Amino acid sequence: MTRTIHQTIAVRYDFPVIFTRDALAPQNSALAGLFPPCTPAPGGCGTSPQQGCGPHRLAAVLDDGLLASFPDLGARIEGYFRHNPVASLTAPVLAVPGGERAKADLSVFQSVLDLIFEARLCRQSYLLVIGGGAVLDAAGFAAATAHRGVRLIRMPSTALAQNDAGVGVKNAVNFFGRKNFLGCFAPPFAVLNDFALLDGLEERERRAGLAEAVKIALIKDAVFFDRLFADRHALKRLEHGPLEHSIERCAELHLEHIATGGDPFEFGSSRPLDFGHWSAHAMEEATNGALGHGEAVAIGVALDSVYSHLTGLLPADDLAHILEILPDLGFTPWHAALETLDAPTAIESFREHLGGRLFLSLLTGIGARVEVSSIDFAKMQEAVAILRERFA
Amino acid sequence: MTRTIHQTIAVRYDFPVIFTRDALAPQNSALAGLFPPCTPAPGGCGTSPQQGCGPHRLAAVLDDGLLASFPDLGARIEGYFRHNPVASLTAPVLAVPGGERAKADLSVFQSVLDLIFEARLCRQSYLLVIGGGAVLDAAGFAAATAHRGVRLIRMPSTALAQNDAGVGVKNAVNFFGRKNFLGCFAPPFAVLNDFALLDGLEERERRAGLAEAVKIALIKDAVFFDRLFADRHALKRLEHGPLEHSIERCAELHLEHIATGGDPFEFGSSRPLDFGHWSAHAMEEATNGALGHGEAVAIGVALDSVYSHLTGLLPADDLAHILEILPDLGFTPWHAALETLDAPTAIESFREHLGGRLFLSLLTGIGARVEVSSIDFAKMQEAVAILRERFA
Repeated sequence: MTRTIHQTIAVRYDFPVIFTRDALAPQNSALAGLFPPCTPAPGGCGTSPQQGCGPHRLAAVLDDGLLASFPDLGARIEGYFRHNPVASLTAPVLAVPGGERAKADLSVFQSVLDLIFEARLCRQSYLLVIGGGAVLDAAGFAAATAHRGVRLIRMPSTALAQNDAGVGVKNAVNFFGRKNFLGCFAPPFAVLNDFALLDGLEERERRAGLAEAVKIALIKDAVFFDRLFADRHALKRLEHGPLEHSIERCAELHLEHIATGGDPFEFGSSRPLDFGHWSAHAMEEATNGALGHGEAVAIGVALDSVYSHLTGLLPADDLAHILEILPDLGFTPWHAALETLDAPTAIESFREHLGGRLFLSLLTGIGARVEVSSIDFAKMQEAVAILRERFA
Repeated sequence: MTRTIHQTIAVRYDFPVIFTRDALAPQNSALAGLFPPCTPAPGGCGTSPQQGCGPHRLAAVLDDGLLASFPDLGARIEGYFRHNPVASLTAPVLAVPGGERAKADLSVFQSVLDLIFEARLCRQSYLLVIGGGAVLDAAGFAAATAHRGVRLIRMPSTALAQNDAGVGVKNAVNFFGRKNFLGCFAPPFAVLNDFALLDGLEERERRAGLAEAVKIALIKDAVFFDRLFADRHALKRLEHGPLEHSIERCAELHLEHIATGGDPFEFGSSRPLDFGHWSAHAMEEATNGALGHGEAVAIGVALDSVYSHLTGLLPADDLAHILEILPDLGFTPWHAALETLDAPTAIESFREHLGGRLFLSLLTGIGARVEVSSIDFAKMQEAVAILRERFA
């Protein structure tokens, strides 16, 4: 009486992640090269095929935090597509509030939907978004849900967005006062990392990406860690060459994990990329963002590294290198918020955020990790005390 | 100076589509069998792993149109999970307005988000939705975007939802007054088709699914068409056996197309499942829904079949069978809205809805189709005239 059909669907996404400098200089072909030639298939959405094929339809969103450093950015976008007429802007460039405000409510999401509607974009048109992680998240959620997805070209403008969030497959806005409550998984059409955008950042924000670089080196790649360690003094000075290498390699390792980790859309409970993040999230919340994400991750990585050592997993030598590189890169592996951290509550909130069983990554060496599903909170307190004693 | 990483991501979805009767009878194990055993991995989201693993968290949404026929449906859901304690309802069953109202604005979407939040569901919890296509669409969009996706169990309650919309990968709500403007692609965790739910429908709604059955038989499966043709008088009387077979086979063909058609998330422009739908959509809009989807599809299928014949693609014998089965199933392949149909505008609106190039399927025989990218509107008028003459 009961019959079952087993449905299997495989979806494949391919997209380029490009590293360049001065992407909006008219002669830089990286951006223009993303648009497929228009003969004969794709079609501008407003163009009837009977009339032949016009340029691709395009709309652009800009993080207003960038306008302080690059007041002519809107004009540069327009100039780029005048010089490279592969696509045409079918609505004025939209500037939206940058930083966490962008995703704190639905206003940026809604204004990007308005833009998509006014520009008459369809699934085969393009939305170019230039901004930090929060703007990419909110505008990306609009791009992913308008017409069930228009083509999103991300140009991440912060170090953390270029080496981590901006190359991934997530988007979200906050809802019910909960961070990232509303969102979906949707790979972009392309990511264009323009190192020149980082020159507009404050020193503190350029440094922030290094915490994620150390994190992913620790869980994935001892050779990368050694390179970061060797370059640490140049990195502290934020020298272009080493900094840009660290961003590329960090992005590459994140991309590799998403592609080969077996669970790109996070159906399961394991999330190794979140090494050190349970306490980082709690400290960011406790300080209302006064502690930036990179700074908090640096502390969280230090904490879970010490804990890994205390549980006998991580050799002392390796821990010594970790506790040396973080301050040498300009991070302080301590904050008063760590003192007052309620570890059981923070761990439970971290687990509950995405559900399922608790999985935390710990280190067994540089570039090697294991997953555990419970924590010895007395030992964790000991780890906090060790960081306080050394870095407070 | 410019370097490119080519990222490839493969995502695989597996889900069961189950056909049964009286799914909510306590002894029917189909629904209970969907929940994985809780040892030790999945975890109730509110349950700490230290406390061991409780039943899965579950919330349920009900189309209020069903309550007229099945006033005890909420109580039956509660009773089912009391008898089968694999999951526990962590919030009261929510009844939402059924029919097109459900997706006409964001109110059902928002109230399902409220439910998910109040029930403290996470990605590994379950949302059970029992309803017609519009309720499944709006509640499914909430399920797909809360926490970037909680597990959705669909119980489609109309013939059209059971054999088509409810087994697919889309969800959406209307926005800016545009049908399905906002949504995403998100396969369900499971689909449970309960034939007993159809017994509550009006005759007209039970018949509606047959139009989609004829449509997919025509483009995909001559054997299925022959079966429908042989069963047409029993089907007209809506006899259980043939009707349920037609639903199963129609659903199966839709599932096969999504799985093997090469473009489950519709990144391209080709959409063969939309055979006959360009005029159907236009007539539904022109009549403000007085013409139901199934009735409109029956007319659209007749129209594009006649047109296929007029362009020399479809043999006269085959056309004769098509124009015989539709009235024999109880459909009238004509409506005044066809008289006033502005075909060029309707075709362009159909193309623009999803963008890209125009692709329309035409028949070259029963179960065989080709795609064309332009229409001879004089011949289309001729096709309209032929339907008027014969069926008006």
